[in-house]
Amino acid sequence: MLDIIEAKKRGRANSASELGALVSGYLAGDVPDYQMSAWLMAVCLRGMDQTEATALTDIFVASGTELAWESLSAPAVDKHSTGGVGDKTSLVVVPLAAACGLAAPKVSGRGLAFTGGTIDKLESIPGFRVDLTAREFQRQVEEVGAAIVAQSADLVPADRAIYELRDATGTVASPGLIAASIMSKKLAAGAGTIAIDVKVGSGAFMPDYESAIDFADMLVGIGRSAGRKVRAFLTDMNQPLGFAVGHSVEVSEALDVLQGKGPQDVTELALTIVSGLIRDSGLRPAPRAARERAERAISSGTAEAKFREIMRAQSGDLEAFEREPPHERLPVRLPIQLGRGGYVTRVDARAAGRALSLLGGARKVKGESIDHAAGLYITKKVGDPVASDEDWGWIAARDEDSARQALAALREGLSVADSPPPISNLILDQVTG
Amino acid sequence: MLDIIEAKKRGRANSASELGALVSGYLAGDVPDYQMSAWLMAVCLRGMDQTEATALTDIFVASGTELAWESLSAPAVDKHSTGGVGDKTSLVVVPLAAACGLAAPKVSGRGLAFTGGTIDKLESIPGFRVDLTAREFQRQVEEVGAAIVAQSADLVPADRAIYELRDATGTVASPGLIAASIMSKKLAAGAGTIAIDVKVGSGAFMPDYESAIDFADMLVGIGRSAGRKVRAFLTDMNQPLGFAVGHSVEVSEALDVLQGKGPQDVTELALTIVSGLIRDSGLRPAPRAARERAERAISSGTAEAKFREIMRAQSGDLEAFEREPPHERLPVRLPIQLGRGGYVTRVDARAAGRALSLLGGARKVKGESIDHAAGLYITKKVGDPVASDEDWGWIAARDEDSARQALAALREGLSVADSPPPISNLILDQVTG
Repeated sequence: MLDIIEAKKRGRANSASELGALVSGYLAGDVPDYQMSAWLMAVCLRGMDQTEATALTDIFVASGTELAWESLSAPAVDKHSTGGVGDKTSLVVVPLAAACGLAAPKVSGRGLAFTGGTIDKLESIPGFRVDLTAREFQRQVEEVGAAIVAQSADLVPADRAIYELRDATGTVASPGLIAASIMSKKLAAGAGTIAIDVKVGSGAFMPDYESAIDFADMLVGIGRSAGRKVRAFLTDMNQPLGFAVGHSVEVSEALDVLQGKGPQDVTELALTIVSGLIRDSGLRPAPRAARERAERAISSGTAEAKFREIMRAQSGDLEAFEREPPHERLPVRLPIQLGRGGYVTRVDARAAGRALSLLGGARKVKGESIDHAAGLYITKKVGDPVASDEDWGWIAARDEDSARQALAALREGLSVADSPPPISNLILDQVTG
Repeated sequence: MLDIIEAKKRGRANSASELGALVSGYLAGDVPDYQMSAWLMAVCLRGMDQTEATALTDIFVASGTELAWESLSAPAVDKHSTGGVGDKTSLVVVPLAAACGLAAPKVSGRGLAFTGGTIDKLESIPGFRVDLTAREFQRQVEEVGAAIVAQSADLVPADRAIYELRDATGTVASPGLIAASIMSKKLAAGAGTIAIDVKVGSGAFMPDYESAIDFADMLVGIGRSAGRKVRAFLTDMNQPLGFAVGHSVEVSEALDVLQGKGPQDVTELALTIVSGLIRDSGLRPAPRAARERAERAISSGTAEAKFREIMRAQSGDLEAFEREPPHERLPVRLPIQLGRGGYVTRVDARAAGRALSLLGGARKVKGESIDHAAGLYITKKVGDPVASDEDWGWIAARDEDSARQALAALREGLSVADSPPPISNLILDQVTG
């Protein structure tokens, strides 16, 4: 064990058998926490290469059960985001992919820090069941073409155990460890075609394009080794995605997108991702045909219908949600104003995330309960003109105090200038194997 | 706690209050092993600056008792070596310093890995007591001017606890952590004037001059902050110091040096260190007068007499040891031969250390018992001419098997060439505050 730690400390690669001994020893209780955490810190500072990350992923997958979708007639696809502020894309991609003829068995997580998780968002819908049994999950995917469930304890237990230690020792932020963590869950979830949205910017763990493209290459490489088709998208996360930041507000916005009236950025991202899945799964290999199929699923209403079908199958009362969405029932609604006019130059994603956290809508530690109704709705995007007395949107809160604190935090992330700023692309790049 | 780890992970300095919280939390059991080991690994890879090492040293010192020698009429001096193969210098320096009119209260450790500890060497003398009570230690230094005792549990307990974790997590080799570990023990031991022998080379933890000089600066700086006069010597540890490598063989050789008939290198190093202590303590500030005083203590026999006085005071039966030294009682004595003539270009210190380990004379893990009688006596030094059939010395062992294994290991570290190699200095540099 000491040799394994020392090798990594000196910047050498660990072999697959060393990594296997480390992980199995840790799960068996033979490798103590303090040795594992020393190794994790050495990995954070020395890095892991492609071969190591691939080996660690395989070891993680082998630690638990693996799902299989070969019996389905439709190709199974999956999608993951590294986490961003206002990122409700999965809520759109899953029904949209199913509406296009793909099978979308989606295993999702809860949010941590300033990014929300898909499961948290869905829990703002009354009655929605995220804990399906394996049999229920399988049957729903067969019948509806899609389901969204919370990660169960027997899916990649090695990653779960090690993630808790990483969280307690400041060793979360390592590309190799994150890649193994993400890809092991994707491989164990069994889809043959996978889209990964790698967020880049202030609201993401990847701060710049260069580190993100290396990370994307690693993800695609791990997938290739496992015989899966992975496409990684590098997308901008300097400003929130869409207008809505919160849980129930984001569900409402996802529904807007599925009805063809959502914000342009989320709509474009969801269409791009689903087009990629349609191509890579072999359903429609030509880019143009794939894109048209995705667009038609929205314009025809089949994507929205599929969303409602998923809700019903998982006992979610979407009608009750729509009659009076949770965020509209909150007592306080504060308009967002900056008091300066010009062109928007900055709507900082991290500031928006902090604002949501101050409203009680984000988790600081694992297991903490959160407010699903609190949220922000920021309709201004970088490049938009804005008048000095114009509203930028609103904040929905339980009380005046938290609303004012959230507004102050958000305003620190807002800037305007007299001339329009250069506009950066939402989708910066795509990597495929 | 996480913020402290994260700061170090990102290469930022930890404040004195952060380090205090970390160490006191660890000793109180509030900071778990796995967080401490993650921090230790981050320190190994990111380093510690002078301010941090000084703060950590102070925190370590404050965790236990501190000795005080102000009541003595003579200035109290101390000496430490970072550990080398064949390094019996302390056995010479302590009586020599006392014979020169200094007080030498010496707290020593046991050896680990391939370097032997002063306490292990002294334990080869029948009856020698290394565990004096605090009162006995104090009285002997008052009456004899010197004593050599094993480190007690109440001297810097924080270092002791953290050292065990470092040993189990591959986080021993960090200059900042080692500096705090060494200097906290020197400061707690109470001497005002301190000499540190920083070993450089294959048989030392500092492989090269550049890293050793930085480390020496750190030691001197920590001493200066605590109002102590520290002189650090950078000395060569590519070949063993002196001829003897082992425990009883090194005691015999130390006695040779005190009698003025020891190997030139150990004699020169001991004289240089004691001269420095005489100058720095203010006893004889002029370099020439200090050196003459040290030389006279050997030539007049007072240093040897002081060594015998220390032995008696601590119940060591030196007469029994001298009648038949432990290594001479062993059944096997194997001559060292290489079978090639020329000029000696290499007597690798690490190979000699490995050979001693194969004889059972070194500790692989803490607490392990060792053979005090086994040893090597290598009379050839780099630059010496040697005939192909000439003996390089001998190996004393309990059995033929271990003797042959040790010889094979040692021979891997021996080389000769047709022309004499460049000779490097024993004392590479001195740093003082």
